[in-house]
Amino acid sequence: MVMSQLSISLDGYVAGPEQSLQDPLGRGGLQLHEWVFGLDTWRAQHGLTGGERTIDAEVVDEMTRDIGAYVMGRRMFGGGGGDWDEAWQGWWGDEPPFRTPVFVLSHHPRTPLVMNGGTEFRFVTDGIESALRQAQGAAGERQVAIAGGASTVRQYLAAGLIDTLQLHLVPIILGDGERLFDGIAPCLEQVSVVAGPTVTHVTYRVLR
Amino acid sequence: MVMSQLSISLDGYVAGPEQSLQDPLGRGGLQLHEWVFGLDTWRAQHGLTGGERTIDAEVVDEMTRDIGAYVMGRRMFGGGGGDWDEAWQGWWGDEPPFRTPVFVLSHHPRTPLVMNGGTEFRFVTDGIESALRQAQGAAGERQVAIAGGASTVRQYLAAGLIDTLQLHLVPIILGDGERLFDGIAPCLEQVSVVAGPTVTHVTYRVLR
Repeated sequence: MVMSQLSISLDGYVAGPEQSLQDPLGRGGLQLHEWVFGLDTWRAQHGLTGGERTIDAEVVDEMTRDIGAYVMGRRMFGGGGGDWDEAWQGWWGDEPPFRTPVFVLSHHPRTPLVMNGGTEFRFVTDGIESALRQAQGAAGERQVAIAGGASTVRQYLAAGLIDTLQLHLVPIILGDGERLFDGIAPCLEQVSVVAGPTVTHVTYRVLR
Repeated sequence: MVMSQLSISLDGYVAGPEQSLQDPLGRGGLQLHEWVFGLDTWRAQHGLTGGERTIDAEVVDEMTRDIGAYVMGRRMFGGGGGDWDEAWQGWWGDEPPFRTPVFVLSHHPRTPLVMNGGTEFRFVTDGIESALRQAQGAAGERQVAIAGGASTVRQYLAAGLIDTLQLHLVPIILGDGERLFDGIAPCLEQVSVVAGPTVTHVTYRVLR
């Protein structure tokens, strides 16, 4: 099973306009993720204590519990384009929150990076299908999550390689930015809905 | 209290592309409304018998039960632009489903149209605020619904005149068409969520 989950504005954006290395979520894009930062599950994944135990925390818990490997785009891993600056080890410090193998799509080879806490970044240069196959091999019976960014999720959706898409519907209007469904129209079937205090979590099955 | 409710695609469209007199919902736009046609409440409002009693039917029941007057744009009422063709009495036959006064925005005056079943179409030529005032006078203690189309709802949202916005989130991607939030970014707060069998109903309070 391959899943992906994204926070999306009411007008269909998953990042604001003017994304840059300094502002990877674009103008206003951080608002899409505010619902998650105070949660105990999110804080625990990031090595922090405390936080709230709301129904949102249970949603985060449930969606991450069974993940055996991640795939992410190079831009989500960060560090800029071109040849690797080996000093860049991602945005997440010594102990990233993934705690599984993470397959990073890139056009530039790099030796794997073993981090604390079970995360290992492996760099894949031969395309999205290869990355998914490797992630499935690493995950075994567990799920593979397409972590992002949006363009990576869009590529996997377009290729028909995602089974389950969970959208966190955030009541903001961004007006401009990066649209999840730009140029793609997957056939979706609503599977489940959870009402959080401020956002709504809807899970869809992607039909073939 | 002034409310409005619309069906919206996952990419933020409330009508498909290429809207015309022949195809007022645009290409693919009818899919936004399919969830409603089989419901017993919708059928009863349209003078039909039978239909299903799902949680969607209860949503429709609840959102229409307390409405004392409607406001709608001229395009939703139909009949084309310019001076009125008096033979045109709306899309809904002799007994329209509104069963209250309906204030139709227009630049062209027309005498009121009294229909069967309690619906009376009154034509307002002095703007959206006047139409709302008249609708509120007619509704008394009951709610006023801004019925549509999307551009009318957008005008009322932009003017800060809507208190409650209910969106029926339909799992389709239209890719192009009319966007509800085109050029406006009202501040919304999630109030309630109802999971239907195929769509999700989310109610927002519009903050000032």
